[in-house]
Amino acid sequence: MTIDLNCDLGESFGVWPMGSDAAMIELATSVNIACGFHAGDADTMRKTVDLAGTHGVNIGAHPGYRDLHGFGRRPIAGLTSGEIENLVAYQIGALQAIATMAGHRVTHVKAHGALSNVACEDDMTARAIASAVKAVDPGLVFVVPANSRLVAAGEAAGLPLAHEVFADRAYEDDGSLVSRRKPGAVLHNADEIARRVVTMLQSGEVVSITGKPIRMRMDTVCIHGDTPDAVRIARTLRQALKDNGIAVAPFNLIK
Amino acid sequence: MTIDLNCDLGESFGVWPMGSDAAMIELATSVNIACGFHAGDADTMRKTVDLAGTHGVNIGAHPGYRDLHGFGRRPIAGLTSGEIENLVAYQIGALQAIATMAGHRVTHVKAHGALSNVACEDDMTARAIASAVKAVDPGLVFVVPANSRLVAAGEAAGLPLAHEVFADRAYEDDGSLVSRRKPGAVLHNADEIARRVVTMLQSGEVVSITGKPIRMRMDTVCIHGDTPDAVRIARTLRQALKDNGIAVAPFNLIK
Amino acid sequence: MTIDLNCDLGESFGVWPMGSDAAMIELATSVNIACGFHAGDADTMRKTVDLAGTHGVNIGAHPGYRDLHGFGRRPIAGLTSGEIENLVAYQIGALQAIATMAGHRVTHVKAHGALSNVACEDDMTARAIASAVKAVDPGLVFVVPANSRLVAAGEAAGLPLAHEVFADRAYEDDGSLVSRRKPGAVLHNADEIARRVVTMLQSGEVVSITGKPIRMRMDTVCIHGDTPDAVRIARTLRQALKDNGIAVAPFNLIK
Amino acid sequence: MTIDLNCDLGESFGVWPMGSDAAMIELATSVNIACGFHAGDADTMRKTVDLAGTHGVNIGAHPGYRDLHGFGRRPIAGLTSGEIENLVAYQIGALQAIATMAGHRVTHVKAHGALSNVACEDDMTARAIASAVKAVDPGLVFVVPANSRLVAAGEAAGLPLAHEVFADRAYEDDGSLVSRRKPGAVLHNADEIARRVVTMLQSGEVVSITGKPIRMRMDTVCIHGDTPDAVRIARTLRQALKDNGIAVAPFNLIK
Repeated sequence: MTIDLNCDLGESFGVWPMGSDAAMIELATSVNIACGFHAGDADTMRKTVDLAGTHGVNIGAHPGYRDLHGFGRRPIAGLTSGEIENLVAYQIGALQAIATMAGHRVTHVKAHGALSNVACEDDMTARAIASAVKAVDPGLVFVVPANSRLVAAGEAAGLPLAHEVFADRAYEDDGSLVSRRKPGAVLHNADEIARRVVTMLQSGEVVSITGKPIRMRMDTVCIHGDTPDAVRIARTLRQALKDNGIAVAPFNLIK
Repeated sequence: MTIDLNCDLGESFGVWPMGSDAAMIELATSVNIACGFHAGDADTMRKTVDLAGTHGVNIGAHPGYRDLHGFGRRPIAGLTSGEIENLVAYQIGALQAIATMAGHRVTHVKAHGALSNVACEDDMTARAIASAVKAVDPGLVFVVPANSRLVAAGEAAGLPLAHEVFADRAYEDDGSLVSRRKPGAVLHNADEIARRVVTMLQSGEVVSITGKPIRMRMDTVCIHGDTPDAVRIARTLRQALKDNGIAVAPFNLIK
Repeated sequence: MTIDLNCDLGESFGVWPMGSDAAMIELATSVNIACGFHAGDADTMRKTVDLAGTHGVNIGAHPGYRDLHGFGRRPIAGLTSGEIENLVAYQIGALQAIATMAGHRVTHVKAHGALSNVACEDDMTARAIASAVKAVDPGLVFVVPANSRLVAAGEAAGLPLAHEVFADRAYEDDGSLVSRRKPGAVLHNADEIARRVVTMLQSGEVVSITGKPIRMRMDTVCIHGDTPDAVRIARTLRQALKDNGIAVAPFNLIK
Repeated sequence: MTIDLNCDLGESFGVWPMGSDAAMIELATSVNIACGFHAGDADTMRKTVDLAGTHGVNIGAHPGYRDLHGFGRRPIAGLTSGEIENLVAYQIGALQAIATMAGHRVTHVKAHGALSNVACEDDMTARAIASAVKAVDPGLVFVVPANSRLVAAGEAAGLPLAHEVFADRAYEDDGSLVSRRKPGAVLHNADEIARRVVTMLQSGEVVSITGKPIRMRMDTVCIHGDTPDAVRIARTLRQALKDNGIAVAPFNLIK
């Protein structure tokens, strides 16, 4: 049994650092790099692509809304399907060029923050993102939250998909994530998170916040790198996977 | 005898329109599209790429400094070579993805405004731009002001070059452009501009503001689309070229 | 009988012009100046304040969401009450300083675009805006769409209010504006608009899109300056007001 | 003998924190708050003003170039005198409104980064800044690097001045700061910095990098809060001042 671990990276901006990229790059097998709309900039992208390339992990574009101040976490209404396609394509292309310049290539795309959250429930947004990914490069793996509208959109577009589950987030009975505003939405205990992920992977099921098991395809587990405890949690998880005979590898290299 | 006419396009931003793109696309054979740093945005780029593709003109990236408020016309000091490479690559890549999505491809790169002006005299900046173009795609034509440091940088990088002369700008004796702040820097009379370009092309020489002839390679003539009179001037020029037996075609299609 | 006519001004940004400020300043008695978040910048604000001061019209701050690309017309979710207060106060203060420098002063505040639309229906947003206006200067007149939640918020804050009706917009039966996406939402015929405003002012009632009369307090009529026909419509309206014996004056000078 | 210690604060942006504001507020007597152009935003400004107000320190505006990505450290050429006035006034006003909302008031203005560096040597820039400060509020104290062109500009404008020396920067023989690119430009040893400042204040002279004593008026000492060692350096300095009988107080409260 083998699983991919994906992590958002390159979320610094200008002089402002963010996250523990140097530590997380040792723990993740795929990284999603901010492309300058909600975080990141050309220099941070270059540095992050170099880091990812050196470590042989998957390099992914992580497009978000045009919202630096809100870190792409604020839902922005009123964008047309075409406008969403354009902003996604723009961000992927920017990273592709930076990657090409560094001698690497972009392997996947995962939507960020509010853009992803909106797309998980809104078909128009989900299809626009999938459509942009496909139009830019139909070989790009589309990383999508399992059981979301993004899965359907990616399938309809004929993109290779990586279904994603979250290591530290609670699920509703319908397979959606519990809103961060609700109690219990985010798990903080490293051992609990590690145990939970191992169980999820072994059973092929996520247990919802009410105790209901939900069957999900799981190609990649999302781990976080931007909280004080993130590195410790990720290390604990890696160790638990190892202890349970679950190998870790980039999703596109898993047979 | 055949010449290319290049024009900056796609310089709108958000709700703010700029230029006469619909008219200029009929007159130019290569267009340089703003990539979102000094003007343009993903939507404008998409619209402009579609327009250019429909008209069969060359689609070029027109990267500038990160300076929307100043339209990329303010020299920004203190950028390292790597930072210039990154911002140029980012912008080219963004346009490439938009072009790919629209079923077209980027053929060339021309630096914008202050970034170009600085690079015309500063080897570090010139080399960084050329280096980014080459690293992203060594097949991209590098459009460079004739006689500038950008020529040397492009040659050193081994890029295919298109040497550019300006239809409506006066030249100093050393082949550089007369600063816009000096009197006589910009020509406004359509007939004079047309006559001047015809003479330049026929003689292979630009006559400087003091009357000195300067030999230059001329692959493309820069025409402007952002002044009230721009369309009339460009039409007059096209007619004068025709009247003098000078054909007009995209630079990469000229044998 | 006397009425104020208010118009959004100073919506240019950097090199991008917008609107017919020079013409509209002759027709409006109060102007709402963009403060740099959805449009405008320090230079445009200075120019617009000078223009307004010269013409003796009311100078108002027109704060919007931080959304230059979308011109503040995209609803942005997830802002806290405090964050809305801060962005409104910031924008008012920026204009106050520019006005002070120019020897004038800010007399009123009117929220822009999506910020206003959201506030018309959302008490939290409405109260946050009113709270910021009051905290910055309780003497500022708060311009609010008649019958909206902004009226209640302004009253609760104890601010002097100017109730606003729209010259060219249709109303629903509940007194809210018909969404721009619905047919008939915006009126385009100058004569019809002029007649409609005169009737509204004489009767103290707006007739809704279904024909229902709605009683409203009317201190100011919103006229637009950013469409091709705007100036002609405003002129027709001014003439119709004059023909019907309705004087026009800044709202704070009306006895 | 009494001296003011000033420190830049509020340099976070959106989700990106910067500096050790909570620690530095205990050590400084005047703080210079970023106003959203090179760092800071309305929310950070509010938080920082609250912090400063609670601690009874001077609240200053710290205007910079419009350059978030470069943190205002990149010289931007081509701005007119009027444009500099406008951007300075805008930023001061934004902070004034935030301060008013929080029940406090802005006491001083100090230019940031490249804007300050350029103004130290360029009369046009220096005068434009001073002119904006005066036009917004002639009672604002203008904090200016001792011996720079900003002193002359502030005097010509008739503004109350606070002459500033730097705790951790080396000086050239002409009283200007040694460029950060030169070796020895920045001092890092806490004890050396503390000793140096005490000597400077006792003698009224700065010793240049070549050993030449330069007479300077010293109203405030600039301390930094954005380096890992900053808090320790500032604490060492405060202790050294105390040990040498030099009191610390906001500059406007010094008799």
